[in-house]
Amino acid sequence: MNTETIQSAIHPNQNHPNRNRPPLCFVRHAVWPPPRWGIALETPPGVGMKNWSNEFIGVDWGTTNLRAYRIGCDGGIQESFEDVLGVSAVSDGNFAGIVRELRETLGNLPMLLSGMIGSSIGWRTTPYVAAPASLEDIAAKITWVEPRWTGLLPGISVLTNSRADVMRGEEVQLLGYQSEHGLTQYTICHPGTHTKWAKVRGGKVEDFRSVMTGEQFSLLKEHSLLKAMMHGRVEPDRSFLEAVETGWSGVELTAELFTVRANVLLSRLPECRAASTVSGLLIGMDLRTGLRLAGHDLIVVLGDPALVRLYTAAIEHIGKDCEPAEGATAFVAGMTRIKEMIQ
Amino acid sequence: MNTETIQSAIHPNQNHPNRNRPPLCFVRHAVWPPPRWGIALETPPGVGMKNWSNEFIGVDWGTTNLRAYRIGCDGGIQESFEDVLGVSAVSDGNFAGIVRELRETLGNLPMLLSGMIGSSIGWRTTPYVAAPASLEDIAAKITWVEPRWTGLLPGISVLTNSRADVMRGEEVQLLGYQSEHGLTQYTICHPGTHTKWAKVRGGKVEDFRSVMTGEQFSLLKEHSLLKAMMHGRVEPDRSFLEAVETGWSGVELTAELFTVRANVLLSRLPECRAASTVSGLLIGMDLRTGLRLAGHDLIVVLGDPALVRLYTAAIEHIGKDCEPAEGATAFVAGMTRIKEMIQ
Repeated sequence: MNTETIQSAIHPNQNHPNRNRPPLCFVRHAVWPPPRWGIALETPPGVGMKNWSNEFIGVDWGTTNLRAYRIGCDGGIQESFEDVLGVSAVSDGNFAGIVRELRETLGNLPMLLSGMIGSSIGWRTTPYVAAPASLEDIAAKITWVEPRWTGLLPGISVLTNSRADVMRGEEVQLLGYQSEHGLTQYTICHPGTHTKWAKVRGGKVEDFRSVMTGEQFSLLKEHSLLKAMMHGRVEPDRSFLEAVETGWSGVELTAELFTVRANVLLSRLPECRAASTVSGLLIGMDLRTGLRLAGHDLIVVLGDPALVRLYTAAIEHIGKDCEPAEGATAFVAGMTRIKEMIQ
Repeated sequence: MNTETIQSAIHPNQNHPNRNRPPLCFVRHAVWPPPRWGIALETPPGVGMKNWSNEFIGVDWGTTNLRAYRIGCDGGIQESFEDVLGVSAVSDGNFAGIVRELRETLGNLPMLLSGMIGSSIGWRTTPYVAAPASLEDIAAKITWVEPRWTGLLPGISVLTNSRADVMRGEEVQLLGYQSEHGLTQYTICHPGTHTKWAKVRGGKVEDFRSVMTGEQFSLLKEHSLLKAMMHGRVEPDRSFLEAVETGWSGVELTAELFTVRANVLLSRLPECRAASTVSGLLIGMDLRTGLRLAGHDLIVVLGDPALVRLYTAAIEHIGKDCEPAEGATAFVAGMTRIKEMIQ
């Protein structure tokens, strides 16, 4: 079985909107052919198969992406899988079918799923656990689609007199990082479509803020008057860092965005730097929210490596220290901790 | 001739993207059938017809709208015309054809055009006049597509060490307001896709700022994760005014937008108020840029009546005075002053 076979297995519906898109699928630590675990793939979950003490599958199923991992008893990644088949791309709502295909690919194993799959646009709506929340609190509120076989994790919410916020999926990484590193107090920045900044204290997400940085960038790049000039690659270069300073200094976004356009029209900014400038501006503004939350905490920037590179450059440019970290390993560490609690 | 006939006259290309859209066309002060001015419509511009001392046509041709007026020698509106045929909708670039149709409808008269029709996405690119700029400066830089018959007005730019900005079209209204009211010092707020705040001193636009308020609202309403909840009508109600305060207080837009979503998900904000909340937030932020520019000036809010209503409510809510004004009459007053300079 090669990656193309996996791709077609995961896209049984040929009317899928992504059917013509090149697969983002990749495999690491793969053993081909996958071990059969002594059972036929058609075997329904039965006695013995609900044993969480062995391997299991952990899935991070967001709005636009799906990442699945076969995780060994030692917490190591045995095989992993990534696809653009996010929750919003499953137009027929056949999540059960995709989960079946995932098991055909990764093994007929118990499965935990986190992210938007547990939201109103996903498979089933799972509740939010109120912050402060630990991995134990999350494990205690699993919604079992199939008893002790296929479980959806809850998200976390913050609801104070002055503020409301929600997250779904990032919490596994944010707390998983702790079980990897044994830290007790830090703030994690998880950059993305909706960047999350979370204050972690003694194994609990105590407070957090979401910032629509990635989504705003996409809206501008794909649909705004600036789209024609936002064709350059975003790099942590001089235009980017200057814009980080501007965003950090507290300008108004909607006024500053028009300034980017005017600067290009009046030949003050080369058009090829417009995308880096907009990105820097948004990330600079993002830091205002996040670093206010972080206070004097150690800041860990965790997630997609390209975004981690931009955010660490931005944070260091304004004179703060931070640690880069990889999202996938933190996710698997978090899932492994949850699995240990339910086995 | 009824409005439908006008609509088909202005949309000769049946492949036009707006061909199925209900006409926004309206006629005021109309005299039907229109006076023939003693000539056949097919007559090319000739001797006697370049006489700017009589009636003329003034056109405000923006990115998404076209507004045309037949203006009498006394500066009164004799007939007017509005359509969604903005510059960006003219996919075949046949601006000359549309101008011909406009003359067939409004009269074979001299014509002045302002707005994005003079930009790189319009008919011909006209230069910017550097601020401070008066109506005289604008009249002196007309680009004649047909000599003294069809003229495109330039835009205005600001380019200082610290800032760049541009406008195309609004300058006629901003300065036209002055020739109507005889004021010498005021700041005009012209709300829209790209709201303009302009400081006017002794008949010149001295400085201005553009804010992407309307465009940002459309991006969120049409393309963002918030779109499903932004279906309510925007009114200057309590949700709107509370959000104006939040925007005015200096929050970060991208963080605050996610808070709107979380407030709806956690049942703290009724979904039907999401659109008013986002609008109030954006307008509150817009005021931070605009009122800083205005200082102690009289503030005139001029333009589309529905937007003027929202902005005047917002400005008064944060404790400032302002005057509402109508964009169309200011535009015609500005065009009439320019016509007097070239006749």
